[in-house]
Amino acid sequence: MRNKKNEKVEKHIILTGDRPTGCLHLGHYVGSLRERVRLQKELREFIIIADTQALTDNAENPEKIRKNIIEVALDYLAVGIDPKLTTIFVQSLIPELSELTTYYLNMVTVSRLQRNPTVKDEIKQRGFGSSIPAGFFIYPVSQAADITAFKADLVPVGDDQLPMIEQATEIVRTFNRIYNTSVLVEPKALLSNTPRLPGTDGRGKMSKSLGNFISLSDDEKTIINKVKMMYTDPNHLHAEDPGIVEGNPVFAYLDAFDSDKDSLEKMKEQYQRGGLGDVVVKNRLVEVLLAELNPIRKKREEFAKDLSYIMKIIKQGSEDAREVASKTLSEVKGVMKIDYF
Amino acid sequence: MRNKKNEKVEKHIILTGDRPTGCLHLGHYVGSLRERVRLQKELREFIIIADTQALTDNAENPEKIRKNIIEVALDYLAVGIDPKLTTIFVQSLIPELSELTTYYLNMVTVSRLQRNPTVKDEIKQRGFGSSIPAGFFIYPVSQAADITAFKADLVPVGDDQLPMIEQATEIVRTFNRIYNTSVLVEPKALLSNTPRLPGTDGRGKMSKSLGNFISLSDDEKTIINKVKMMYTDPNHLHAEDPGIVEGNPVFAYLDAFDSDKDSLEKMKEQYQRGGLGDVVVKNRLVEVLLAELNPIRKKREEFAKDLSYIMKIIKQGSEDAREVASKTLSEVKGVMKIDYF
Repeated sequence: MRNKKNEKVEKHIILTGDRPTGCLHLGHYVGSLRERVRLQKELREFIIIADTQALTDNAENPEKIRKNIIEVALDYLAVGIDPKLTTIFVQSLIPELSELTTYYLNMVTVSRLQRNPTVKDEIKQRGFGSSIPAGFFIYPVSQAADITAFKADLVPVGDDQLPMIEQATEIVRTFNRIYNTSVLVEPKALLSNTPRLPGTDGRGKMSKSLGNFISLSDDEKTIINKVKMMYTDPNHLHAEDPGIVEGNPVFAYLDAFDSDKDSLEKMKEQYQRGGLGDVVVKNRLVEVLLAELNPIRKKREEFAKDLSYIMKIIKQGSEDAREVASKTLSEVKGVMKIDYF
Repeated sequence: MRNKKNEKVEKHIILTGDRPTGCLHLGHYVGSLRERVRLQKELREFIIIADTQALTDNAENPEKIRKNIIEVALDYLAVGIDPKLTTIFVQSLIPELSELTTYYLNMVTVSRLQRNPTVKDEIKQRGFGSSIPAGFFIYPVSQAADITAFKADLVPVGDDQLPMIEQATEIVRTFNRIYNTSVLVEPKALLSNTPRLPGTDGRGKMSKSLGNFISLSDDEKTIINKVKMMYTDPNHLHAEDPGIVEGNPVFAYLDAFDSDKDSLEKMKEQYQRGGLGDVVVKNRLVEVLLAELNPIRKKREEFAKDLSYIMKIIKQGSEDAREVASKTLSEVKGVMKIDYF
């Protein structure tokens, strides 16, 4: 297992992951999980289940985080992430990440953190106002630790997350300059070229907190119902009316999942011209979604029967990840000359 | 060694220590070290050499910190801190402190940290303005980790440090409330009743950065010179002039070190009346200082001959401290329910 991973060491190293605050959904699948499955064969991939980060704004609800670590790991295995190729680990099981964060916090000023656009946005979204938990405030620094601990040079992100990569890059540069070293690796953003999947309500992106998502673990009935309730063109009241395709989430989902592009083009033309009802389009969407999601759900159910296996995967992955992070921390403390023994 | 320490477990637990940014001086000795030597027989004492904290505003100069860890440890042993009774440890050797800090950061808001008067003062003193390193900004949280990791219920502080204890207490209360536990112990400030030793220049306290101090490691000649140069009453130009005793650092030092209180009282009276020259008073101060400091310096020189012994003390102390901190961290993760394995 370890050998296979090491063979890829000379190649790119990817760090990606999720906050375990809920099951993963179609947005994750289209935007990230499918790509991770593809990339795990070519690159050295680390996937972090970021429980520590999730706790920064869920400190009062750690059971939710605990429970969702398993759910997220199940999602990973169900979509085809292979623990023989990819290291799946839990953030809090790698104490070295806290230590690196401690030292990186000296590389960043408070005003720099205050200017971080992603943090600003999320503070707004979460309604923190001036009562941001300090842990949440410094999470870009903690993310820099996650990335650099594994010497990841590629980090898949959406464009809203670009400032996080910039922050990590700044920390790397400051650290390497101050300690006259090249021990830390500058990460680069790996921007997805898949358009972001909108929520089932047509508003922004699919989001756990807005409840406008289809989970990878949703059963057939739930999927059918969610598609039925999906937002379409609000002015497309009758089948014979012309409808709008742009910004219509049903077509966005078909773009993401329907492999029969020719017939999809024809449906779009007919919809725009008038003469194609939402029900027909939604039925097609149900069909392609179930074709994609049924096998995933079945695999998920299989894995869920043996949670001790899941725990074993997480434990082994975390041990492997810790070995790598520990080596980086030693190097960091070495160049800082705080390696006293 | 460990047994002796454990016998005191039921008694009070003290956490105290120093930032290794320079040799310790008379101010430390009078305000803190003498008391530590006295208390080590009665209480369970942990002394932290706070290298991680020192790095928050010395990140570009880690060699200074590294060097001064040894100097500070030499000072401890020279004044009579006994590693058989007291656990001397280095902060960065206890990764559990970083982990605890990570979780405590979720218990504190950014605005609460911004209101901390001690932090405000120190930011001013250090001229950080808006470019405070984030590590420095959050150091009250890191101090809460230092204190609580050892379940210290007493923390010796000057009154300028009271807000730090308040912050730690708040974190303990919030943590214990959120996780419905009593795992963390509320610390209490142990205020010194020794008046603070002024600087040799009569300005404020003795401070490494102001250069107005007498080190425990200063040689005789240096001590004599520093006393000669000491600020006294600026209007006491001739021996026959009446002089002022209050706020006169020479008399403050005599108060702290001269055990012959009767003759000291007489000197004060004569000084105030007129007829006692500064030279006479300073000669007496040299006499009592050398009587106190010569044995300390000699012990220090002895210890300095065997630095491997010092390293052994630090290493063993840090291992002992880590055992305690690790137990606390396990309990903390247990009540947070993030003890996955």
